[in-house]
Amino acid sequence: MEYTKPLAKLIEYFQKLPSIGPKTAMRLALHIVKMPENEVNNFANALIEAKTKISYCKTCFNMSCNDPCEVCSDVTRNKSVICVVGETKDLMAIEKTNEYHGLYHVLQGLISPIDGIGPDDIRVKELLYRVNQNDVKEVILALNPSVEGEATSLYLGKLLKPFNIKISRIAFGLPMGAELEYADEMTLARALEGRVEL
Amino acid sequence: MEYTKPLAKLIEYFQKLPSIGPKTAMRLALHIVKMPENEVNNFANALIEAKTKISYCKTCFNMSCNDPCEVCSDVTRNKSVICVVGETKDLMAIEKTNEYHGLYHVLQGLISPIDGIGPDDIRVKELLYRVNQNDVKEVILALNPSVEGEATSLYLGKLLKPFNIKISRIAFGLPMGAELEYADEMTLARALEGRVEL
Repeated sequence: MEYTKPLAKLIEYFQKLPSIGPKTAMRLALHIVKMPENEVNNFANALIEAKTKISYCKTCFNMSCNDPCEVCSDVTRNKSVICVVGETKDLMAIEKTNEYHGLYHVLQGLISPIDGIGPDDIRVKELLYRVNQNDVKEVILALNPSVEGEATSLYLGKLLKPFNIKISRIAFGLPMGAELEYADEMTLARALEGRVEL
Repeated sequence: MEYTKPLAKLIEYFQKLPSIGPKTAMRLALHIVKMPENEVNNFANALIEAKTKISYCKTCFNMSCNDPCEVCSDVTRNKSVICVVGETKDLMAIEKTNEYHGLYHVLQGLISPIDGIGPDDIRVKELLYRVNQNDVKEVILALNPSVEGEATSLYLGKLLKPFNIKISRIAFGLPMGAELEYADEMTLARALEGRVEL
């Protein structure tokens, strides 16, 4: 038996989303059919609304309905610090800590030679422009501890050096609650390397 | 920072879907914003179309755009066997094996006293009606090996006994590729109990 056509189509769309495999896609599609009709309509509208209304802040490239975005236009924010992240989701993760009150810069990607992504493909020159124009005192690099993140951090570190501002990188080490004996060697090595004097 | 409103709304909708947690919901919502607009429109339409066009077969309660459904109206199917499943997704799983060529009956649930689901809340009487009316020779119970599935199988077994037809249940035991030493006790116990003479 083939899936009935509208179901097959919906499963296909769900499957195109990240981290949704064929089984989950099927479960989601079947769930949609069981949902009340008005909820399905609301969901469909939410999809279209998110797509049409949300764009990127032309200053920091955060996703937002407004330009400048909520962070850039917030007068209580410390405008002398810029935290550089790879993607909007990283910005959101940092916002959730409630520990950071400066501005952001979303690179919209990381340097990855094997994927053909160079510095010109991400928002590097826009970062330099901001650092150059405004009264920025510190740039915090908060990129993933991956090959691409490291490469991008190194590259940005070099580029930003001439500006004579503080450049920092978030700490890599043991996550809270982890046990030393189960940590992988890379993490342990970075934790040792990044040891802090007491 | 709060999520920009259309994003927050979309995240909320994704999170209502089964097996989608807050992190996945955020990732999916961000992905939607990055997708080309026409693809988002197509996805939204697929949702609405699936909901409006798909209904339930009034014979076997399979999801379908047609009534009777594709299985019930397929003349090549063996109409003397009915395989009873809990949900449409179970029917689909069996169809994928390509080993079964009879009809189905989707109960649309399993008996679960703690959830307040009794025999009258699922499609039991419709099954009895079918067995009574038509020339059914065998009913195969293919319900989950769970407390609810077992209870429902037992109940249906008793109800169907007077019809003097063959009633069977799918085998429970070690899954293919499993290793005996890692099997849980319940599975091993069922595998022993269900041993087959060679």
